Amino acid sequence: MHTLLDNVPAHAANTDQGAAMPRPVTLINVFEVPEGQREATLAGWERAAAFLSVQPGYLGTALHESLAPDARFRFINVAQWTTPDAFRAAAAAMREQRIFPKIPGLAIHPALYTVIRNAAPEAA
Amino acid sequence: MHTLLDNVPAHAANTDQGAAMPRPVTLINVFEVPEGQREATLAGWERAAAFLSVQPGYLGTALHESLAPDARFRFINVAQWTTPDAFRAAAAAMREQRIFPKIPGLAIHPALYTVIRNAAPEAA
Repeated sequence: MHTLLDNVPAHAANTDQGAAMPRPVTLINVFEVPEGQREATLAGWERAAAFLSVQPGYLGTALHESLAPDARFRFINVAQWTTPDAFRAAAAAMREQRIFPKIPGLAIHPALYTVIRNAAPEAA
Repeated sequence: MHTLLDNVPAHAANTDQGAAMPRPVTLINVFEVPEGQREATLAGWERAAAFLSVQPGYLGTALHESLAPDARFRFINVAQWTTPDAFRAAAAAMREQRIFPKIPGLAIHPALYTVIRNAAPEAA
């Protein structure tokens, strides 16, 4: 079983660690997939993931698909990178090499995030 | 629009695996936060998280904030639940008790997800 929280390093949280190591950042990419373009989008994601997985600073990714086929955001990709600059360099290289295909009507919203709150279950 | 977790489809189902154990599902909640409403939204999230963290089936949550204050989705919450039904029951209880405050202009897009692809780093 793969769940997202498995992939989020504990130190991805926005904790105060003095002179600690640089903290990884999380790239979250939200996909608005037009009807009929699920497979093309998934193929594009796989092509991008293969490219990114060999770039410096890449730590891993998990592609989420909505249970409901008509969810507003059919795919949400959550990836870890060592630093914002590592991600930006990889993304620029990917754009330059036109790795991700043009898909009519597809809207993609990527941004970098940090975890600012964690909440574990508590006894009722 | 102001109410958390309204849009999760009723037909979402825990998928495949025959007679195996149910797999946890991931709730991803995407927040479009209007300017000036970051703190109110965060306070609402904390109130919701406190409520949800004592509900049956809750496994944990991580609230992500964008590094850029002007990102389209300022907050993205990623939570784990044992089953879709456990989440839906908790969300219904939360709505009924009006846990999440009304925040002008806030748009929230929750949906249930499963991870369909994982990619670890590979040697270049």
